[in-house]
Amino acid sequence: MQRPVAPGSLCIVPAGSGQGPPCYVCYCEGPEGPGLDPEPGQTCAFNIYVTDALELWNTSFTPETLEKHKAQHGLDGAEDYSAWFRVACDQHAVSLTLKDDSSVHLTISREAETLTFNLSKVPSPDAAPRLQALMLRLAEQVCRLERQLAALKDETPSPRKKPQS
Amino acid sequence: MQRPVAPGSLCIVPAGSGQGPPCYVCYCEGPEGPGLDPEPGQTCAFNIYVTDALELWNTSFTPETLEKHKAQHGLDGAEDYSAWFRVACDQHAVSLTLKDDSSVHLTISREAETLTFNLSKVPSPDAAPRLQALMLRLAEQVCRLERQLAALKDETPSPRKKPQS
Repeated sequence: MQRPVAPGSLCIVPAGSGQGPPCYVCYCEGPEGPGLDPEPGQTCAFNIYVTDALELWNTSFTPETLEKHKAQHGLDGAEDYSAWFRVACDQHAVSLTLKDDSSVHLTISREAETLTFNLSKVPSPDAAPRLQALMLRLAEQVCRLERQLAALKDETPSPRKKPQS
Repeated sequence: MQRPVAPGSLCIVPAGSGQGPPCYVCYCEGPEGPGLDPEPGQTCAFNIYVTDALELWNTSFTPETLEKHKAQHGLDGAEDYSAWFRVACDQHAVSLTLKDDSSVHLTISREAETLTFNLSKVPSPDAAPRLQALMLRLAEQVCRLERQLAALKDETPSPRKKPQS
């Protein structure tokens, strides 16, 4: 079994074309992997989100359009896009271009294969609560990871650690 | 010397009074501690920020008003508020109340001592780029911490870890 890949389903992607902000937050949600999101009890297709923290774009997949996307890329319906995305985040193999204000073109590479996605802008009334929830979740994750890191550092005997007096 | 305290100068604080969102992100910036912020080369007084990811409130301290605040609390001018804040974040000793839409009352406790702060709302044109920068920094921190955690887990021999085949 493949070793789980860090840093999970979130990455910072520099903008490809010079226009717009210098970088974007890119993450996925969906039933195939934990991502950052799924609300408890909510079932949704795999989707990729891109944000500059003001605007939000997404792949808007339904289970049907997701299956069609896989078929277009010559992939089996059981192919796990969350795993692709996680590996690509870890290997800095996600890239994006802001095509115009309303759409983002995103590519995910794995070895010789490349998946391409077109993301459209989420309307402001839907985007605002999602961005708000995203920021709170990111802050919670920072706190949780800091605690885990501190706990693990306490457990780990390190030759660099000065003896406690 | 006191052991450095996790999780750093950021915490999630539940709202005290039932109104508004269920929780707020609370962080500090300033020359006394790293906080989340200081732009390279920028000198600023210690300040506490509170946000629900839509609105932003801050203490608006200048070096002069910060000194006055310390004096009002019977503290020496050299007292390190960043250290107070860091410890309080770690010990869940930060609490806040939204007094009305425009101001937040915040308390930080350390042992028997309590500091109180009044934060006022940052006008939207100033708040928007700060919130945008905050989200990107939080996402970067999540990625960085995930990488550190993964690296540390790889270094740490654990009896719970299954042998790699």
